[in-house]
Amino acid sequence: MQLTALDGIGDVVAGDDIAQIIAASLGAIRLAAQDVVVVAQKIVSKAEGRRVDLAGVTPSPAALDLARTTGKDARLVELILGEASEVVRAVPGVLIVRHRLGLVMANAGIDQSNLSRDTPGEPVLLLPVDPDASARAIRNGLRAATGVAPAVVISDSFGRPWRLGSVNVAIGVAGLPALVDRRGEPDRYGRRLEATEVALADAVAAAAGLVMGEGAEGLPVVHMRGLGWQESDAGSAMLLRAAGQDLFR
Amino acid sequence: MQLTALDGIGDVVAGDDIAQIIAASLGAIRLAAQDVVVVAQKIVSKAEGRRVDLAGVTPSPAALDLARTTGKDARLVELILGEASEVVRAVPGVLIVRHRLGLVMANAGIDQSNLSRDTPGEPVLLLPVDPDASARAIRNGLRAATGVAPAVVISDSFGRPWRLGSVNVAIGVAGLPALVDRRGEPDRYGRRLEATEVALADAVAAAAGLVMGEGAEGLPVVHMRGLGWQESDAGSAMLLRAAGQDLFR
Repeated sequence: MQLTALDGIGDVVAGDDIAQIIAASLGAIRLAAQDVVVVAQKIVSKAEGRRVDLAGVTPSPAALDLARTTGKDARLVELILGEASEVVRAVPGVLIVRHRLGLVMANAGIDQSNLSRDTPGEPVLLLPVDPDASARAIRNGLRAATGVAPAVVISDSFGRPWRLGSVNVAIGVAGLPALVDRRGEPDRYGRRLEATEVALADAVAAAAGLVMGEGAEGLPVVHMRGLGWQESDAGSAMLLRAAGQDLFR
Repeated sequence: MQLTALDGIGDVVAGDDIAQIIAASLGAIRLAAQDVVVVAQKIVSKAEGRRVDLAGVTPSPAALDLARTTGKDARLVELILGEASEVVRAVPGVLIVRHRLGLVMANAGIDQSNLSRDTPGEPVLLLPVDPDASARAIRNGLRAATGVAPAVVISDSFGRPWRLGSVNVAIGVAGLPALVDRRGEPDRYGRRLEATEVALADAVAAAAGLVMGEGAEGLPVVHMRGLGWQESDAGSAMLLRAAGQDLFR
């Protein structure tokens, strides 16, 4: 399996066509149908105009309360609550919510880094409105531009409850199955496998994160070749535990 | 970045030298110092003789209790408790504990699949006694056998509290930093990055899991080339949140 971060993506602005940008940045890569293209959430959100200026946000009483608890900017908390269906944990420095998409994540995925210095105000970036739809649109755009429809995964960086450090997971998926159910398949000794629902799209996102980097050298699109996958249109939601089925104490 | 699952590892039995087996299975690959070798926990445990026959286990009253709660084999629960420092969650079908190594995981990582049919009794497999030491030993063995010391990561498959499906994480690390602290580095626009402690070893394990497969085609060793890393002897423990610092409700 081979992973290649694409050069030359450059700054993405609202209205940009991510599929066109990717198609123009493939260089020597000739897309094949079993390829996977992993795209960082950040450029998808930028292209979709999901930037908000904190200067224009008025915090509600609930946001002011949670801002005091967490020590976060009340205007940012207002935006987080607007994206959230439930507050999961709020302690100093930490605000974890269930995003309206079902994702349990810090700050509803709202991001303040890697926004161009040229932007006036105090810009932050929200998640795409529907990342599965974004992934499908990029896939369709790549099909139109190149004649080939690789799987597309939109990745974002998540913390974990029991482990330190972030890893990338899949918040949008088109083409490949986000979850592969291997329960019932025989192991190499003919014994039935237990507990092997594999989070394929999350592992794809984590792998791509190794070559994306962050910070100054950020490379937001990764081409992956050599992963076997079977067509699926189920999207990313199958990765989400329903509220009440999580593994809390 | 390139990932290659090694062919020809075959069955591993107690007393086997994993480094020798890997060195003999490299085929056309000539190890380089910046390479990473990812090894599935299962073959490390087998080589270290961590197999236990359930038929010889007598459950304690506490194990019998938890077996009733969870519906699991009381002898298996006895082994799980012997490996655990704390029970995190016990409900029908689920027994999550904090392993004595600090890992929060289902069934203390004890595994019943992929154990040879030829073994008498009801074999299960415990985690290595000290997976970081196992990783260091494999690294040293590869250095002795090939003159080159790639990083070594021992991976195991974990569930996640808020997401379905398993991904591989690192339970043993030698050579590379398990966690990379990028807080304070500038992003591409000169803004300070927030919250970017990256779980490098976990992403490496997740990536390797994409080519390892499970079940009949299991390929327990993956060679990875093209990942930049800086020497570290800190091991895997830096990935663990201390008890009480987890992100529970």
